[in-house]
Amino acid sequence: MSVKIALLGFGTVASGVPFLLEENTKKIEQTAQSAIEIAKVLVKDEAEKDSLIAKGYDYPFVTDVEEILSDSDIAIVVELMGRIEPARTFIKRALEAGKHVVTANKDLLAVHGPELLEIAQKNGLALYYEAAVAGGIPILRTLANSFTSDKITRVLGVLNGTSNFMLTKMVAEGWSYSDALAKAQELGYAESDPTNDVDGIDAAYKAVILSQFAFGMTIAFEDVHHKGIRDIAPEDVALAQELGYVIKLVASIEETPSGLAAEVTPTFLPKHHPLASVNGVMNAVFVESIGIGESMFYGPGAGQKPTAASVVADIVRIARRLKDQTVGKGFNEFHQAAVLAQPEDIKSSYYFAIGTPDQPGQILRLAEIFNAEKISFKQILQSDADGQMARVVIVTHSVDKTQLEKVTKRLAELSDIEVYNVLKVLGE
Amino acid sequence: MSVKIALLGFGTVASGVPFLLEENTKKIEQTAQSAIEIAKVLVKDEAEKDSLIAKGYDYPFVTDVEEILSDSDIAIVVELMGRIEPARTFIKRALEAGKHVVTANKDLLAVHGPELLEIAQKNGLALYYEAAVAGGIPILRTLANSFTSDKITRVLGVLNGTSNFMLTKMVAEGWSYSDALAKAQELGYAESDPTNDVDGIDAAYKAVILSQFAFGMTIAFEDVHHKGIRDIAPEDVALAQELGYVIKLVASIEETPSGLAAEVTPTFLPKHHPLASVNGVMNAVFVESIGIGESMFYGPGAGQKPTAASVVADIVRIARRLKDQTVGKGFNEFHQAAVLAQPEDIKSSYYFAIGTPDQPGQILRLAEIFNAEKISFKQILQSDADGQMARVVIVTHSVDKTQLEKVTKRLAELSDIEVYNVLKVLGE
Repeated sequence: MSVKIALLGFGTVASGVPFLLEENTKKIEQTAQSAIEIAKVLVKDEAEKDSLIAKGYDYPFVTDVEEILSDSDIAIVVELMGRIEPARTFIKRALEAGKHVVTANKDLLAVHGPELLEIAQKNGLALYYEAAVAGGIPILRTLANSFTSDKITRVLGVLNGTSNFMLTKMVAEGWSYSDALAKAQELGYAESDPTNDVDGIDAAYKAVILSQFAFGMTIAFEDVHHKGIRDIAPEDVALAQELGYVIKLVASIEETPSGLAAEVTPTFLPKHHPLASVNGVMNAVFVESIGIGESMFYGPGAGQKPTAASVVADIVRIARRLKDQTVGKGFNEFHQAAVLAQPEDIKSSYYFAIGTPDQPGQILRLAEIFNAEKISFKQILQSDADGQMARVVIVTHSVDKTQLEKVTKRLAELSDIEVYNVLKVLGE
Repeated sequence: MSVKIALLGFGTVASGVPFLLEENTKKIEQTAQSAIEIAKVLVKDEAEKDSLIAKGYDYPFVTDVEEILSDSDIAIVVELMGRIEPARTFIKRALEAGKHVVTANKDLLAVHGPELLEIAQKNGLALYYEAAVAGGIPILRTLANSFTSDKITRVLGVLNGTSNFMLTKMVAEGWSYSDALAKAQELGYAESDPTNDVDGIDAAYKAVILSQFAFGMTIAFEDVHHKGIRDIAPEDVALAQELGYVIKLVASIEETPSGLAAEVTPTFLPKHHPLASVNGVMNAVFVESIGIGESMFYGPGAGQKPTAASVVADIVRIARRLKDQTVGKGFNEFHQAAVLAQPEDIKSSYYFAIGTPDQPGQILRLAEIFNAEKISFKQILQSDADGQMARVVIVTHSVDKTQLEKVTKRLAELSDIEVYNVLKVLGE
């Protein structure tokens, strides 16, 4: 007997699904203990249907989602349309119609996940979304299945391929932000409006989902402070290298004494840190835990086949659980109340790039300002004066968010000093 | 209701099990949907029992395995004694007594796995061993659960922490093999007889197990050609660096047109390959597949807590499956007939370090020898003459095992030429 699935949308990722189902039939059927059959595919309109048929795809295409929702033979609905609407409504209705759902839609899950998961649970249905975080990397299932025995203390992720591609070019080739963006757009990695990628929004969505799996806490998108890579100057990149670091856009979710701290921000990584060699469009999730210690999961963060591999793994898992009659199990079963960290518990080193008047005594003056907030220096570097201004670079020892805010405010009040950039620095 | 487990052996890894069960009780009980209780612990003798009690461990210690086997309350037996006997007999008897088994014993599984798995399957029992490969890295469960949708074409692994620690020192610090071994022994990473680690035997055991999960094929230990790191000279390490490579002891399992090829051998990895930055005692498994493409799973290959984390993950999974009444499922459900590759399908580039008389015309002479076997050069380097001999280093283009054997034989026949080393080179 075969398990019938319906695809909502037949774009790039969706067309990878039949590829894997066909190339890998024997293995899939062994694990699912059923054949998997694409019974219907929802497309936008007749024009899309005709164009897909012309390309040689011969699925039963439909243009009305009702034909899928009302088809009692279809067990699993696979949503690959992206964006919030109509995906949200379609998933909701599929769940209400008693169908299991697989989706790769991180925006939707980060914002409306709890609502959808509740409907799924109430109806004893599966709602799986391995592909929503880090594309092809099987990180969610691994956190849910293998880290059950372990207590995670911090997760660091390079989760946005577009910005990682850009930063890799900026680091390896010395490109400017705008050159890197132009190249990313030319290669199709970045959209014409790159906001979601370069401002850390996409990575923050993924951090919301990772928080659920790694810490059992459902936090809101707004709880993830995000800062992107727009303000990274070639000088910052060069100074990072000089100081022994590589800049990456890093999502960090960590447990502090008062609660969970989640943020996405450009981060100086020590050049020997495993995440520092994650280059180009690749993603990685680095996990710190009391049992395993340090582990890392590396792979493609996007792309047709990697994403489809995660989607099909979810489909296979549901098919098998239908067979085993255990399909009501949640994708993630670790839950605890979400408590957010107090600012004074969120600690890190920071890099300050500061322009000062090209006069003697400036270092002493900066030292006094930082010292007043009890912030000590780990590294300090004074570059050549650039016109009227000298560039001073400071890497601090550990600073909490309250101290950070105070010292930043103090520096901002001084009219002859300019703060070019403040970036997080990961300790060794 | 709690699930009762018995530990066979209470050495380093075993004592990590209660640590994780206690530190992580809430999460474990949420996922297992049962409490997990250490009901009995088998120790060698009264002396070990007294010494553990003196250290503050207050488990019901027993010195006779019968007390565990005949105890119908015990659902899971956790074997952490290592070596073949009596572990093999105890596991067999535990399975025959209807108990599920968790073990970290790679030697045993690589050699007697099929026999034990058959008994487990026949009796509808779980036999799980996540910790047997790459210690803390959750690689087996990930291959079994997440790669169901994908077709793996090659697995490359840095699977032996001891030899990787030694090679890291040889590469980073220029140490000799014997200095690196002495340090590894001093730090407790290597045993006084380091054979299993430095000769690639330990990694070959793991390759046997990985073959089952990645390719569904049960191959014999003897089918994994293994060569260790004893013959790596500082000159090889230096030349690798000069040519843009890092030497690691790599287990490689790959599909070829005629079948599976598995070997463990020191390998030149391009310095930008993700495995090249796996240093010290860390392990990693790099997977190439038609869906995901390239992914890597990195973490500690050994150690008390990492290994215990994998062991406890297995225990939790069994406890949950007892609850779900699906406990008869195999750890790995992907099976196909094992077919080994023909030598002419096993291809790679190779590094040859050759001593020739310090006379003109030697490169031409070598070129003729290699050309006669249709082997072309990718890189060639002539170092300064060392006494009577000049050192010529050749990196070939792709060569199959038949060609490799022929050219090696030809070179061996020449009395004025000495082949210092032949090592595998991974292409970019």
